[in-house]
Amino acid sequence: MTDQKDDVYGDHISHKFNSELNELKTEFLKMGGMVEAQVEQAVKSLIDSDAELAEKTRLKDKEVDKLEKALDEEATLIIARRQPTARDLRLVISVIKMVADLERVGDEAKKIAKLALKLSEEGQAPRGYVEVRHISEHVLHMLHDSLDAFARLDSVQALQIMKEDKRVDEEYQAAARTLLTFMMEDNRNISRCMSVMGVLRALERVGDHACNIAENVIFMVEGEDVRHTPVEEAEKIVGG
Amino acid sequence: MTDQKDDVYGDHISHKFNSELNELKTEFLKMGGMVEAQVEQAVKSLIDSDAELAEKTRLKDKEVDKLEKALDEEATLIIARRQPTARDLRLVISVIKMVADLERVGDEAKKIAKLALKLSEEGQAPRGYVEVRHISEHVLHMLHDSLDAFARLDSVQALQIMKEDKRVDEEYQAAARTLLTFMMEDNRNISRCMSVMGVLRALERVGDHACNIAENVIFMVEGEDVRHTPVEEAEKIVGG
Repeated sequence: MTDQKDDVYGDHISHKFNSELNELKTEFLKMGGMVEAQVEQAVKSLIDSDAELAEKTRLKDKEVDKLEKALDEEATLIIARRQPTARDLRLVISVIKMVADLERVGDEAKKIAKLALKLSEEGQAPRGYVEVRHISEHVLHMLHDSLDAFARLDSVQALQIMKEDKRVDEEYQAAARTLLTFMMEDNRNISRCMSVMGVLRALERVGDHACNIAENVIFMVEGEDVRHTPVEEAEKIVGG
Repeated sequence: MTDQKDDVYGDHISHKFNSELNELKTEFLKMGGMVEAQVEQAVKSLIDSDAELAEKTRLKDKEVDKLEKALDEEATLIIARRQPTARDLRLVISVIKMVADLERVGDEAKKIAKLALKLSEEGQAPRGYVEVRHISEHVLHMLHDSLDAFARLDSVQALQIMKEDKRVDEEYQAAARTLLTFMMEDNRNISRCMSVMGVLRALERVGDHACNIAENVIFMVEGEDVRHTPVEEAEKIVGG
């Protein structure tokens, strides 16, 4: 279809269309970088018990929300104006879906920042922060890689992220068990441990969203929807 | 644009296009009814401590996932083939977004069913089930209304759901506090209360997704993106 269009409208339109698609990609990656930093800073504010940073991170969410709306609008306009098909259409629709994922990552960062604020106000000794640090490094890595896989349209890298997601779930389960033990040991730990559990859960969700982005990258590149597909099958599709 | 197309292709194409859009709506509502029933049954399995029903509900998720893929494909095909614009395009893109919400509602139902299974195996006295029943009724109502608002493209009803969401959050906070008290009272309650807390959180998320659907209905009808907009402003847009 794109070729047909080139015949009819000539290179000029096609060139403009390409630059619009590139702009969409760039803006998406900008939003990605923004929520990445937001998660990073939310975790830092927790571990350093830095209320000021937590507050700053919490407020960042507004900018992310704005970018979400702008990207959605831009993607819809491209569809209406350029009527993309095949691979181009997959790209635009995937961006619309992935933008929702990024926005939710921003929400999780906001949640972590709120919990960091609560924990720093209570001012008790940290519990489970080793686990928080560990899982946060893991999911931030996944998020970064998923954006990188999108930037380079690399389905092999995307597949790798799908594999990581299971490991994060296991790490989360182990961490939750550890926190449960702390709670059992001493009632005074309960409230604090519940907050840290909330942080861990938010991080685990960040991993889920990175995984969604990875699935979308595979869809864009391979044209196959690998959601709810066992990793072994996705492996065959990607052929990596 | 739709008018232009009618001029060029005549009524036949336009008629087919309309029936495709209607089919998309019908399938979406079918998926909606499915996840509604899934949440309902998951909660029932918990309250009745019915392991068999919990297991059955958990497995329903596969059907929901299939419908998600089918609907996404159908929506993408409509865009590629019919190149809708304006209101029609908003409808199709909204369906793509709302399908993701419904799929996540299905995931939450699955989580509740899993926790119901765990709790029924442990076989202890229920804790916080009054709260579960209360919140589940509330969010199921919201979910039902959001689907209804979509079916009738009723932005006034959709606005009502946006207002409800705050109340659910408050109910969830109150219920969480109650469960925390049970945990403080007796260490042996901790594990069970954590599970029930997981159920409450899943229900609260169902409410969030109903709210997302409602926001999409307002977008479809009014052409305005009311996400992250204070309810008072959304009220002005809807004018209800």
